[in-house]
Amino acid sequence: IEREVVGHFARAIAATRPELEPASLDKPLAMLLFGMINWLFTWFKPGQPLDYPTLAPLVADLFLNGVSGLHITPVIRPEGEQTHVT
Amino acid sequence: IEREVVGHFARAIAATRPELEPASLDKPLAMLLFGMINWLFTWFKPGQPLDYPTLAPLVADLFLNGVSGLHITPVIRPEGEQTHVT
Repeated sequence: IEREVVGHFARAIAATRPELEPASLDKPLAMLLFGMINWLFTWFKPGQPLDYPTLAPLVADLFLNGVSGLHITPVIRPEGEQTHVT
Repeated sequence: IEREVVGHFARAIAATRPELEPASLDKPLAMLLFGMINWLFTWFKPGQPLDYPTLAPLVADLFLNGVSGLHITPVIRPEGEQTHVT
C-alpha cells in the first residue's frame, strides 16, 4: 500500500512538471515531501506557536514552489550520443 | 548541540528571507529541511538510480526555491489593532 500512495503522489507531482517522470525524479520528490511530513512527529507540537492550519499551506507552498523552480535535466538521448558513462 | 545546529540553519534560511524570523518560521523551516534529509535513510539507496551528487542540488533547489516563493504574512502589529484572537 505504501508503494501505491507514493505512486499517487508521484503522479500528482509529475502532473505539475511533466519532465519529472522521464527524469525518474517524480518518486524521489514524493519521498522528500513525505520526509518533511513524517519528520514532523519529531519536533512539531501543534499550537506552540504554529498550528496545523498554518503549517499545512506552508509545507504545500514550500514544496510546490520548490518543484516549479527545479532545473530538470532533460533525459532526451540522441542516437549515437554517449550517456552517463561511469 | 541539536538546538545549535537548528539555530545555524534557521539563521541561514532567514538570511534569504528576513521576514521569516519575526514570523517565527525560520526554525520550523529548518526542521522541514532536516525532515527531507533525515527521512532519506528510509528510502534512499545511492545510485539506484539517483546518487548523492544528483540528489544534493535537487534538495537544495527544492528547498531554496520553495522558501523564496513563500507567502509570509507580515507580523507587523499596529498599536490598538487586534492580533490572532483565538
